[in-house]
Amino acid sequence: MSNADLLARRARLLGPNVSTFYDEPVHLVKGEGVWVWDAEGNRYLDCYNNVPHVGHCHPRVTDAICRQAGMLNTHTRYLHEGILNYVERLTGTFEGDLSTAILTCSGSEANDIALRMAEAVTGKHGIIATDHTYHGNTSAVAHLSRTNIPAQGDGSHVRHVPAPDSYRPLGGDGGLAHARTFAAKVQEAIDDLESSGHGFAAVIFCPAFLNEGFPVLEPGWLDPVAKVVQKAGGLFIADEVQPGFGRNGERFWGHQRIGVTPDIVTMGKPMGNGHPVAGLVTTPDIMAAFRKSFRYFNTFGGNPVSCAAAMAVLEVLEEEGLQENARRVGAFARDGLGRLAEKHEQIGDVRGYGLFFGAEIVLDRGTKAPATKYTTRVVNEMRRRGVLMNKLGIHYNTLKIRPPMPFSQDHAELMLDTLDGVLADLGMPRD
Amino acid sequence: MSNADLLARRARLLGPNVSTFYDEPVHLVKGEGVWVWDAEGNRYLDCYNNVPHVGHCHPRVTDAICRQAGMLNTHTRYLHEGILNYVERLTGTFEGDLSTAILTCSGSEANDIALRMAEAVTGKHGIIATDHTYHGNTSAVAHLSRTNIPAQGDGSHVRHVPAPDSYRPLGGDGGLAHARTFAAKVQEAIDDLESSGHGFAAVIFCPAFLNEGFPVLEPGWLDPVAKVVQKAGGLFIADEVQPGFGRNGERFWGHQRIGVTPDIVTMGKPMGNGHPVAGLVTTPDIMAAFRKSFRYFNTFGGNPVSCAAAMAVLEVLEEEGLQENARRVGAFARDGLGRLAEKHEQIGDVRGYGLFFGAEIVLDRGTKAPATKYTTRVVNEMRRRGVLMNKLGIHYNTLKIRPPMPFSQDHAELMLDTLDGVLADLGMPRD
Repeated sequence: MSNADLLARRARLLGPNVSTFYDEPVHLVKGEGVWVWDAEGNRYLDCYNNVPHVGHCHPRVTDAICRQAGMLNTHTRYLHEGILNYVERLTGTFEGDLSTAILTCSGSEANDIALRMAEAVTGKHGIIATDHTYHGNTSAVAHLSRTNIPAQGDGSHVRHVPAPDSYRPLGGDGGLAHARTFAAKVQEAIDDLESSGHGFAAVIFCPAFLNEGFPVLEPGWLDPVAKVVQKAGGLFIADEVQPGFGRNGERFWGHQRIGVTPDIVTMGKPMGNGHPVAGLVTTPDIMAAFRKSFRYFNTFGGNPVSCAAAMAVLEVLEEEGLQENARRVGAFARDGLGRLAEKHEQIGDVRGYGLFFGAEIVLDRGTKAPATKYTTRVVNEMRRRGVLMNKLGIHYNTLKIRPPMPFSQDHAELMLDTLDGVLADLGMPRD
Repeated sequence: MSNADLLARRARLLGPNVSTFYDEPVHLVKGEGVWVWDAEGNRYLDCYNNVPHVGHCHPRVTDAICRQAGMLNTHTRYLHEGILNYVERLTGTFEGDLSTAILTCSGSEANDIALRMAEAVTGKHGIIATDHTYHGNTSAVAHLSRTNIPAQGDGSHVRHVPAPDSYRPLGGDGGLAHARTFAAKVQEAIDDLESSGHGFAAVIFCPAFLNEGFPVLEPGWLDPVAKVVQKAGGLFIADEVQPGFGRNGERFWGHQRIGVTPDIVTMGKPMGNGHPVAGLVTTPDIMAAFRKSFRYFNTFGGNPVSCAAAMAVLEVLEEEGLQENARRVGAFARDGLGRLAEKHEQIGDVRGYGLFFGAEIVLDRGTKAPATKYTTRVVNEMRRRGVLMNKLGIHYNTLKIRPPMPFSQDHAELMLDTLDGVLADLGMPRD
């Protein structure tokens, strides 16, 4: 079946505006490690997908799913050791009293709960997020994102602060000055929420601001914000759906790398290597406040099969040393991008952490004018040459490179060589 | 590990108030067909779980999950035939132009989308549900249920109408008079929403009112309500999370049995036999309105493994004739409950559809006073004798019997014999 036929079937069965990647979408049929294959047998290096965290179809995870699915799959109103063993191991990766968890099916569901936890603790509704974020797809969390039109209420309880941008820092100065400017913006939003009557309940940030374009932010950068939030009596929700589970290379969680202790940590995509499992971790006090104020039960959340998949992911991460791999290969790849920047004037900035990194493509290094359309052409040309990546950021001109964790130096070299050729062949951007 | 130890670990790792079933919770370790086993090797007849729809650990479903999890698991921004083949087969079970679908991880996510669809079509927010319902756990759908304390907004856009009750019909008359009384209550709620400024967007009902206690409602009973809703320009959302997928025995979907055509049908629990897959089906026009107003992407929704699991469920239902089994065994079991009612005065009413049925336990048949606490004792004693069921309904005095679909006459007889003994041994209720 041709791509045109598949796209026609999608339009008929799934409706209009269901987005696909690339000018010519990829019809995938098989995956293994960092590789995927299309229906015609073409192989692609996957530099994009963080969901197959320990590699596409990792046999350890697949075996764990098969074994448990053949044994028992039921919900948490019966006792089962699977969820307890998993939550014990998961919370063991956290500091302080981040020691209790709720498991859900999606990161959206986890963030949706986090908002209610903030309400239960503070008695207030107001939430602060950045103006270039995404925290999920339920009605409540869609309010947080400017790329969704919110529903069931007007979203007047949400304030957006300018996303941190280390390449073009607000106020002109980077580093600690930038951190203080950001904290001041959060303080303004808190004051506005308090005076509006909503009150201030929480901030929700990806601690590496990955959708915002993964700015370079040194450890301590979030301290001024954390201080402002704490002083105002709100909660700090860290959305670790992307930077967590070792991806940043240095520490297991993104908030640990930047050195902030959140009140609630939410997680999702990579947690079950593709199996729909997600959740949040918080303190016993916050959990008790939530459980006192709200009844919550999730039929599929924390079922034995989901827990088996998630446990296998933690085991593989440790046994295969994938956090260290992310640190080492990520550094190697960023160095490689830096060398490409010496040859290709259109690379304005190279940045990232571990296996979440990329390069900002600009029309001119002096003006830093974003080469948004050109970046789309780069991504499409990479796909044609067998390397899957995408773009993101405030100006949508930043290459988004976020491969499965077993990404090796050889894979990085193949990606860099291909990118070198594409940038050379496309030449300097004009748009 | 003892139950006491497991409960202590749960309290520590999952927090307080995470409910379990029964005075003495069951520590399950294995499931097969309609049977589950606890850690001590005791076998239980499962008369409760609709999630393992075609039977616990059905090998066809497990094989489908294993095969696809070992081949590829990714999201819908790549082309894949799995979701298209599944949605084609799924929508083939619907009438009219209910021909497009969105797949999610949970029924909660599906209902959350349905509310936004109603908003996209009508431009209004007001939703009507019954006063004894449950439609899920996201912030937006938690508003619909009185058993949740809503969050992120005050829920002032929700109106609750009295749940239909064929045993104690509102106004005193059953049948069509009851239907008209119910429709009048919905009309009142619509008028109230319109005058309050919220406007009327949709009703959301389980078309068999299962949580409400599965009242006996003949085909045509919902016609007066459907007329009122249509005249007011609102949508009819049918929450088929429980009655769908052949469970009612007579037709594949609950709304088909009662003879109403909804605008949106949501589904969940049984869809993947325990694998976290859910979704909704609607018309192309409603889907287009939603896709025009809202951006929506669900990372795990419609992934190849979820679709393989869900497809296997549809195949097994057909190949094993499970809808016909539900009709036949359900009728046999209800007849059996009727015979028990001749012996046991405490059974006030027997009702249900297919493999969702039960008996209302009362203190006195004349006053119909509910024997709520006694019903809890019945459920706990059934569990001690190896038969798992629960209770529900407006007065929480109705036995909830909702077994996996391969439930046979022999299984029904075992359940009936056990119940006969329990009712005899407990004697007449006093509370």
